[in-house]
Amino acid sequence: MHFKLDTITNLEKNFRTNLINGISGGKPACLIGTKHHNGINNLAIFSNIIHIGANPALIGILFRPISDKSHTYQNIKNNLYFTLNHIDSSFIKKAHYTSAKFPENTSEFDVCELTPEFLEDFQAPFVKESRIKIGLKFVEEQHITSNDTLLVIGQIEHIFIPKEGLDEEGNVLLADLNGVSIGGLSTYYELSKIAQFPYAKIDQIPPF
Amino acid sequence: MHFKLDTITNLEKNFRTNLINGISGGKPACLIGTKHHNGINNLAIFSNIIHIGANPALIGILFRPISDKSHTYQNIKNNLYFTLNHIDSSFIKKAHYTSAKFPENTSEFDVCELTPEFLEDFQAPFVKESRIKIGLKFVEEQHITSNDTLLVIGQIEHIFIPKEGLDEEGNVLLADLNGVSIGGLSTYYELSKIAQFPYAKIDQIPPF
Repeated sequence: MHFKLDTITNLEKNFRTNLINGISGGKPACLIGTKHHNGINNLAIFSNIIHIGANPALIGILFRPISDKSHTYQNIKNNLYFTLNHIDSSFIKKAHYTSAKFPENTSEFDVCELTPEFLEDFQAPFVKESRIKIGLKFVEEQHITSNDTLLVIGQIEHIFIPKEGLDEEGNVLLADLNGVSIGGLSTYYELSKIAQFPYAKIDQIPPF
Repeated sequence: MHFKLDTITNLEKNFRTNLINGISGGKPACLIGTKHHNGINNLAIFSNIIHIGANPALIGILFRPISDKSHTYQNIKNNLYFTLNHIDSSFIKKAHYTSAKFPENTSEFDVCELTPEFLEDFQAPFVKESRIKIGLKFVEEQHITSNDTLLVIGQIEHIFIPKEGLDEEGNVLLADLNGVSIGGLSTYYELSKIAQFPYAKIDQIPPF
């Protein structure tokens, strides 16, 4: 099938939303934990997450155009601290439903039956059920002028990961920790390792 | 295991690179096709790819700090047009080795034994072996000041996808097309669908 620019523009809205959210490929599956100034622990699922750099250690998260209902964004800007918690196959359903538009005074931890966890005096809640937990501090945001979205960048201040989730070279063993990828807005995939290759050098190209 | 900010800063370089590239989760696996003004078809693997928006249909790609060896970036800025081609499990090894630093006058298509394909007069090469192919036009770039990287944003002008890779609601069936996710810099994961949920509404929260 072939979709051209004008076909895409004229697609039925839900079809286009699914197609374009899905066409960029499998995405990271994380819950962002923040604290509202009223003390409520906020939790929301995000998949538009991108590695920005290793030194300093930076991760970017894309936010839709901001409104007064953008609780996660407002909390990050107010507090500067937030957490990124990997979703694994044991609590996908709970994680998915954090995306419902709950009122500001409702904690998604409560209604979705996930457990806030406070570690190392960090000023935002981690998710106890997550096996990979990252604590970040807001450092920068970039406004995407083409569609009024925002790329929020945080620096990693804490990483919590089980010993069996990391090999001796620092590789994160996503499949061993039952990590998942998200396709589009609604599909969850389990990961199975099928290959690993060394750093590619031009004088060490193998036969194909 | 717990890594704090100062521990991360002082990690051995390769360990830190692997850890931080992997900690953001499973990433999209794509090849970017561009054309150099000398006519050479360039191909390079990228995983730092992010959905930016569905209408207009936008995808972002993160580039390391630019040098005269950043052939893909230079070609995009010179030509404006580029392609994003999904890697599937049938050609992971060839795709991985496009990351070697070949000289400018070498086409990665040739050395990695992949086939350039020209469709609809688009001014950049697609990858014939890819089952999902996207043609994009450069529309915007944002400079990340924290580490001098660049987020390049393209608007989707063409999507090619097999009929069996799309359901009637527009969902992209990544597992049916043998799509893969990348962990860190070197690990490839196969995807198996394990769940799909409806759009989450606060009055339709299921029992967990």
